[in-house]
Amino acid sequence: MPQTKDISRLSPREIRDLIRRGEWDKPTPGLAFGYAQANVVILPARYAFDFFLFCHRNPKPCPLLEVLESGQYEIGSFARAADIRTDVPRYNIFRYGILDNTRKDIRELWQEDFVTFFLGCSFTFEEALIKAGIPVRHIEEGKNVPMYVTNTQCRGGGIFIGPLVVTMRPIPFEKVTRAVQITSRYPFVHGAPVHIGSPENIGIHDLSEPDFGEAVEIKEGEIPVFWACGVTPHAALFHAKPEICITHVPGHMFISDILNEELATS
Amino acid sequence: MPQTKDISRLSPREIRDLIRRGEWDKPTPGLAFGYAQANVVILPARYAFDFFLFCHRNPKPCPLLEVLESGQYEIGSFARAADIRTDVPRYNIFRYGILDNTRKDIRELWQEDFVTFFLGCSFTFEEALIKAGIPVRHIEEGKNVPMYVTNTQCRGGGIFIGPLVVTMRPIPFEKVTRAVQITSRYPFVHGAPVHIGSPENIGIHDLSEPDFGEAVEIKEGEIPVFWACGVTPHAALFHAKPEICITHVPGHMFISDILNEELATS
Repeated sequence: MPQTKDISRLSPREIRDLIRRGEWDKPTPGLAFGYAQANVVILPARYAFDFFLFCHRNPKPCPLLEVLESGQYEIGSFARAADIRTDVPRYNIFRYGILDNTRKDIRELWQEDFVTFFLGCSFTFEEALIKAGIPVRHIEEGKNVPMYVTNTQCRGGGIFIGPLVVTMRPIPFEKVTRAVQITSRYPFVHGAPVHIGSPENIGIHDLSEPDFGEAVEIKEGEIPVFWACGVTPHAALFHAKPEICITHVPGHMFISDILNEELATS
Repeated sequence: MPQTKDISRLSPREIRDLIRRGEWDKPTPGLAFGYAQANVVILPARYAFDFFLFCHRNPKPCPLLEVLESGQYEIGSFARAADIRTDVPRYNIFRYGILDNTRKDIRELWQEDFVTFFLGCSFTFEEALIKAGIPVRHIEEGKNVPMYVTNTQCRGGGIFIGPLVVTMRPIPFEKVTRAVQITSRYPFVHGAPVHIGSPENIGIHDLSEPDFGEAVEIKEGEIPVFWACGVTPHAALFHAKPEICITHVPGHMFISDILNEELATS
């Protein structure tokens, strides 16, 4: 298998080809710098309208970048010559809301009525924060971002309902305004923070015990800032219990041909 | 029937009550100043995912403000205590893509599987243009906005496909930049212009012959500016030919409880 160092200069399409051949099944942060990576949710068509509705009603945690037609697995301009059945490094297979197994290829599981949703991912705005000299702690510490289930309910959409899940990044007080401004430019990748400063207000009682991911240090002079998180739809899927649902394995994202800058509003 | 003058101060809910009682079936521009008015499309559930897809892929002409669950006719926070079967001044009933008749109430036609889509309307950004001292010619001339079918195809979504339809407003050269800036703030009501200056480039050969609406004067020192238009989904519906589709009659919009300013990005 090639090393990260070797593949960091490859184009999105070259990386997808590697993934398709089974030569890359590791996390994708740092790959295809400048290009948007996406969360993936695949569902049978009879759940597709409800899930579309849930995402549309909760655009901060569930920003839809692209949706494919029922049964479609070849992807157009969003990722040329890509195949959603093979081009994600690792897939989670959920049955009735419970993780059943993990695979590198879902061609055997593919159904004629599967609908694929691509959701924006915070990697895009983290790149923008770093460029602006704003620290991103979990990257500095080499960890997965800390995620917390809040006491805020999302708006329901059909059978999909669940709590808002957030990520937390500690930001120096003097850079909070700039962090809000920068992330506001990216509404399709979770956008502006949903909360700044008081974890208790959104039902988080211990930052050292995230529900997912890993805790990070909050230094003197920093304040916790919370953004809507792409794990939110997973919480709703857990509640809806469709007989099958396929997602990427967290961190093992789909790499698109869309530039992060194309996702900026201005 | 009350006069426009009397009802111009009523709240959105009070106006919807008048409409429901059949006491207002005229166009809605100028009513409930400050509140967003919406285009309405109602379709059987089996077309709903495809139409959702079409709108998502063409957000400039088809900016979705709200979508209701299958069969739902009572509307939530988007318009409190409203009923989509009665609260639009006039409805167009299309059968297989062709206008069949026009009604003031669709309770008799309502189906358990009807899905309602609300799309943003340019009235919102026209209010902002006028506030900024930028003339809106068709309002000055007391006409319906001129609309043109372009040579640009929308991205297809399932069975829905069709050309982009645009509106045209002549803008003084010195105010074009400001008009772009102002309308860019409203991505949910067609947003920034899609074209400035050369009608031929988008397949429009005679501005004096609009496909819908009425021609307006372009004065010395003005340039034609084109915005995506909410008639675009109607062109796609005409192509898809669902056995039934219900929309508002142009100009006879649904009045929401959402403030225009809530639809601004910043």
